[in-house]
Amino acid sequence: MTAIAAVSCDPRIADLKANEELSCEAIRSALQRGAELIVLPELVTSGYVFASREEAQEVAIKPDHPVFESWKRTLAGTRATLVAGFCERGAGGALYNSAAILTADGIKAVYRKVHLWDREKLVFEPGAEPPPIVETSAGRLGVLVCYDLEFPEMPRALSLRGAEIIAVPTNWPLVPRPAAEHPPEVIAGMAAARSNRVFIVCADRCGPERGVTFTGGTSVIDPDGWLAASVPGPGIAFADADLERARNKVIGPRNDVLADRVPAIYDEMSPHYAVNPLRPEETQRV
Amino acid sequence: MTAIAAVSCDPRIADLKANEELSCEAIRSALQRGAELIVLPELVTSGYVFASREEAQEVAIKPDHPVFESWKRTLAGTRATLVAGFCERGAGGALYNSAAILTADGIKAVYRKVHLWDREKLVFEPGAEPPPIVETSAGRLGVLVCYDLEFPEMPRALSLRGAEIIAVPTNWPLVPRPAAEHPPEVIAGMAAARSNRVFIVCADRCGPERGVTFTGGTSVIDPDGWLAASVPGPGIAFADADLERARNKVIGPRNDVLADRVPAIYDEMSPHYAVNPLRPEETQRV
Repeated sequence: MTAIAAVSCDPRIADLKANEELSCEAIRSALQRGAELIVLPELVTSGYVFASREEAQEVAIKPDHPVFESWKRTLAGTRATLVAGFCERGAGGALYNSAAILTADGIKAVYRKVHLWDREKLVFEPGAEPPPIVETSAGRLGVLVCYDLEFPEMPRALSLRGAEIIAVPTNWPLVPRPAAEHPPEVIAGMAAARSNRVFIVCADRCGPERGVTFTGGTSVIDPDGWLAASVPGPGIAFADADLERARNKVIGPRNDVLADRVPAIYDEMSPHYAVNPLRPEETQRV
Repeated sequence: MTAIAAVSCDPRIADLKANEELSCEAIRSALQRGAELIVLPELVTSGYVFASREEAQEVAIKPDHPVFESWKRTLAGTRATLVAGFCERGAGGALYNSAAILTADGIKAVYRKVHLWDREKLVFEPGAEPPPIVETSAGRLGVLVCYDLEFPEMPRALSLRGAEIIAVPTNWPLVPRPAAEHPPEVIAGMAAARSNRVFIVCADRCGPERGVTFTGGTSVIDPDGWLAASVPGPGIAFADADLERARNKVIGPRNDVLADRVPAIYDEMSPHYAVNPLRPEETQRV
């Protein structure tokens, strides 16, 4: 079994030092409870609701920034893997909404969010590379950030490439929903976990920030698509994951969620469009 | 507004005449309430739990079978569109798990289920053609059958090709689920409706058949991914659909669920595999 911890915490906007402290504290808490995979929210180093691109620039960091050293030191003596969002300074002053995968040994990969949400488009460049898959002692790990998860292509492709767990640092602004329903982003995660038979670990932030409220979607979703653990407010969602469940795509005597795919049909149906086409000329008229 | 009716009914195994009557009765009920799109369950003409391929063969029909005439007569004088599952006899004795789209004027398209579930693989050939999109007076209509919906590629591709409503005749066997959760297949529909901003209309059968119990997932799901109507047992789920909601893919000042896609990344990540690869050689080792 792999012990998974998804952290819900409340970063302080544009305060690197405070966020280093709160993230290290969360990592220590998770490690004390035996976590082998710890996922922190999107942009946990910087906060989310930047007043301007300039404000983001001031707290943008490179992978050689001391916060990564602090995280490594906090992980020292363990085999745990950490996934955490940060505001990344890239070449030529470009900013990225990124996630680092690291262990006590160092940074294993950095992923730059591909699908940017709303005002993020005013601050960040979109990532130009696919998310990595990293083999860790906590399993074969894929990473997405927030809105990425709402594109079914992303968890599907990571699963086809062998991800057993998909870690999703996120900051989900609260949207209206019917009573008794999960947040819609969690429903997207439940559907993706089930259709790919993978674990999906969402670490959402909490606390209002500059008038934005968050949905509190921190959760560990199992390969049947159900919530193994969730925590709406500040805290940690813990779950033990049997990765064999994610390695086995069989769902009955004659079915397998990946082998049952029919790529030739998908190719025929869906040439890739850069924009929404709504191609009426291809439809039949009754 | 488009009035949509998703029918939950209980076909009788291998009894064409009884099923013709119950399906016409359901169509009449829906029309009396003003339905412009009526969706009946998968294999509504034949029932689902065949004892053998031979039994299915005995009730397999071609599109010139009188049941289609009965349906057309029942629709006469209306502009309504019907989507209904049937056990189709194809060339050379092949059987298909099909859905017909028809109006009072006749059959507009027949779709043969591509993704077969469990023992269906012993009875039916998989469809070799993509599902059609038919422009009807009830909107631009795509069709999937049951297990097809659980492959996110399918609703995505239909949406990219302009479907506003996806009709899903289905027979969902009951599987265990946590209390207070929707059936997992409905959750897949909710996620697909939201990620594509389309209406998804699921017509599930009800009633046990030869020891198989069904989940009662009949529902109309709106483009936000919420249940506009549902009915677990026998009956009809009615909802008024504003198709403009499905034509508009914009979800914020800077976002559009289709235009935000990044096909170059998906292509790079996901060469299509015929079987589950779990390609460990492509992963990085920590």
